[in-house]
Amino acid sequence: MNSFVYQNPTELIFGKGEIAQLASRAAKLGKNVLVVYGGGSIKASGLYDTVMSILAEQGCQVSELAGVEPNPRLGTVYKGIKICRSENIDWILAVGGGSVVDAAKAIAVGALYDGDVWDIYSLKTISEDALPLGVVLTLAATGSEMNRSSVITNWETKEKFGGRTTFPAFSILDPVYTFTVPRDQTVNGICDMMSHVFEQYFSHTPEIPLQSRFAESILLTVIENAERVLDNPEDYDGRANLLLCGTMALNGTLPMGVTTDWASHAIEHAISAIYDIPHGAGLAIVLPRWMRYVYKENIARFKQYALRVWNVDGEGKTDEQIALAGIAQTEAFFKRIGAPGRLADYQIGDENLDRMARLATRFGSIGQFKTLGFDDVREILRACL
Amino acid sequence: MNSFVYQNPTELIFGKGEIAQLASRAAKLGKNVLVVYGGGSIKASGLYDTVMSILAEQGCQVSELAGVEPNPRLGTVYKGIKICRSENIDWILAVGGGSVVDAAKAIAVGALYDGDVWDIYSLKTISEDALPLGVVLTLAATGSEMNRSSVITNWETKEKFGGRTTFPAFSILDPVYTFTVPRDQTVNGICDMMSHVFEQYFSHTPEIPLQSRFAESILLTVIENAERVLDNPEDYDGRANLLLCGTMALNGTLPMGVTTDWASHAIEHAISAIYDIPHGAGLAIVLPRWMRYVYKENIARFKQYALRVWNVDGEGKTDEQIALAGIAQTEAFFKRIGAPGRLADYQIGDENLDRMARLATRFGSIGQFKTLGFDDVREILRACL
Repeated sequence: MNSFVYQNPTELIFGKGEIAQLASRAAKLGKNVLVVYGGGSIKASGLYDTVMSILAEQGCQVSELAGVEPNPRLGTVYKGIKICRSENIDWILAVGGGSVVDAAKAIAVGALYDGDVWDIYSLKTISEDALPLGVVLTLAATGSEMNRSSVITNWETKEKFGGRTTFPAFSILDPVYTFTVPRDQTVNGICDMMSHVFEQYFSHTPEIPLQSRFAESILLTVIENAERVLDNPEDYDGRANLLLCGTMALNGTLPMGVTTDWASHAIEHAISAIYDIPHGAGLAIVLPRWMRYVYKENIARFKQYALRVWNVDGEGKTDEQIALAGIAQTEAFFKRIGAPGRLADYQIGDENLDRMARLATRFGSIGQFKTLGFDDVREILRACL
Repeated sequence: MNSFVYQNPTELIFGKGEIAQLASRAAKLGKNVLVVYGGGSIKASGLYDTVMSILAEQGCQVSELAGVEPNPRLGTVYKGIKICRSENIDWILAVGGGSVVDAAKAIAVGALYDGDVWDIYSLKTISEDALPLGVVLTLAATGSEMNRSSVITNWETKEKFGGRTTFPAFSILDPVYTFTVPRDQTVNGICDMMSHVFEQYFSHTPEIPLQSRFAESILLTVIENAERVLDNPEDYDGRANLLLCGTMALNGTLPMGVTTDWASHAIEHAISAIYDIPHGAGLAIVLPRWMRYVYKENIARFKQYALRVWNVDGEGKTDEQIALAGIAQTEAFFKRIGAPGRLADYQIGDENLDRMARLATRFGSIGQFKTLGFDDVREILRACL
């Protein structure tokens, strides 16, 4: 196990009807609030009205930033920062999925940063100051509701980078709000949370038995609940289990003392920076190819994955065959839940392979499980076509 | 899954040599510090000198409260509170195991509370204010390093109660500091952390697959590392794994959305309030009897425990037989690691059964898995003799 420092101050408020707790949290954070959201789904579901009514009861002065994109863009963040400054905003409330939360995080930090907030994403600076942020989550996927990461796309430069921003002060997670998430977004969310586990599970760090079992616990629970929720989108407990898995997959618990990878995310970010495909969908395409490209670096680890997560029958198989059977089960699962299988599903050809590989390795080699340079990434991308 | 609110702000600093991080934390918290510790073990190990030297380098004015008891007593807490007031203490540093941390928590809250700090333990009041508290942990056991609970014994009234106090601001966990923990204390710590998992695992709450697997993960990891550490006390990774398990067993992760039990703790507190035996040892005696007394309330849960944690072979067995085999494995494990098997090991007879049963049920029935009244507790205690 490596040495590590862990801290996560976010208050997680979980369960049906827990939106009622927004009132007391709003009362603490101030009168001038910027509500950030995406498209019309929260208006259709009635959540928008509920939130606005609670904020009004608390005497809040509400500004709004609507239209945050699925891959949130820097231009939208700039708009939010401008509102924070002109309206003297005390705190920000993100209502939506991970993209909305990520945009709100960028705004929260950017509002108190003198320079261009993109400096934080292009790793030119670190900023510790941020406006307080609250979250009402509507999608089980990114884990952004309980970490300080944020991913923003600079559409002009075609860059999509993750930045270290701020933890939400509180996040309200009501599984009921995820009942109306469309099938494809539910699937993308499932792939996204599984990818977070994979990035932290496939590691050479020795002596991480608890962290490994926690990761396997999340994978087993996601797999057990995925099809159940796809079959019956209003299954409360299934939705609740997925929602909790999404949060626990990326709130700092899994990487305690573990060297993590994150190469698949770097590759996916390069794809969606150029093609604007959903992040979870991109990951579902990249991950199995990444697995096949890297598994020989540590066959024992992939064997453990196959045996514990997929219950692969090891009888008469070599370690490598067991490892490969686990990867095949992963591919079969993604197929079964209807995740996209290749880049061609999004009409993406080989026209930008070099450009994507360059973008993914812009800051140098990526990954820890296997260090990947430009040529490696191009090969993985080619396998995704 | 139940609705829940989770928040844990403690900064966990984990690994060999991480004591160096005490300097920057001390710099933030102020000059006047009260260092709380137990007996001479931290002086023998050199940890005392290391801590004092770091604090001196930061220009801290150090007051000391030594001699905190293994079951920390209210009188000692009063002494600490007096020092905080007379020396205008800015923050408290606990250096030791769970008892030292619990006493320091009581002092941290008591120093800012106008009345008698025992009010908080006898549930007469709740206090949100506390002096900042840092921890340097030397024992894998109670989890107190990352929660807001504290257990204090009022030796005059023979009451031992848990109170809701304050989270440590930071806790430094270096597995090396646990190398010198004597065998019996290592065993008690193992029983203690396993008991915490049991209290949160044996539950009727439906639909808690992730929480259940997390609990099983901790149990499996403790079982896997216990004898290894007893055989070789200086096995860094074994000690590290146990240390992390102890923290994760009681930092709020396991009870997310779960109705927990805590009857065994109430029973053990009644025993050690009167006989001052080690908490972990008392739990090792109580738990198997509690299991045998309650398992019929939910045989399926005990069956899952037997299959997943002890890998019991279910072939040809009824569910009840599988459940009982899991309990037998628990007993065998406690015996194997040398935990005490019965109250007689501490020369405790039946002279105070009624008194202990009354004490355990003083605030009413205890437990959720099976509600236990005075007669139930007396019966469990009698089985412990």
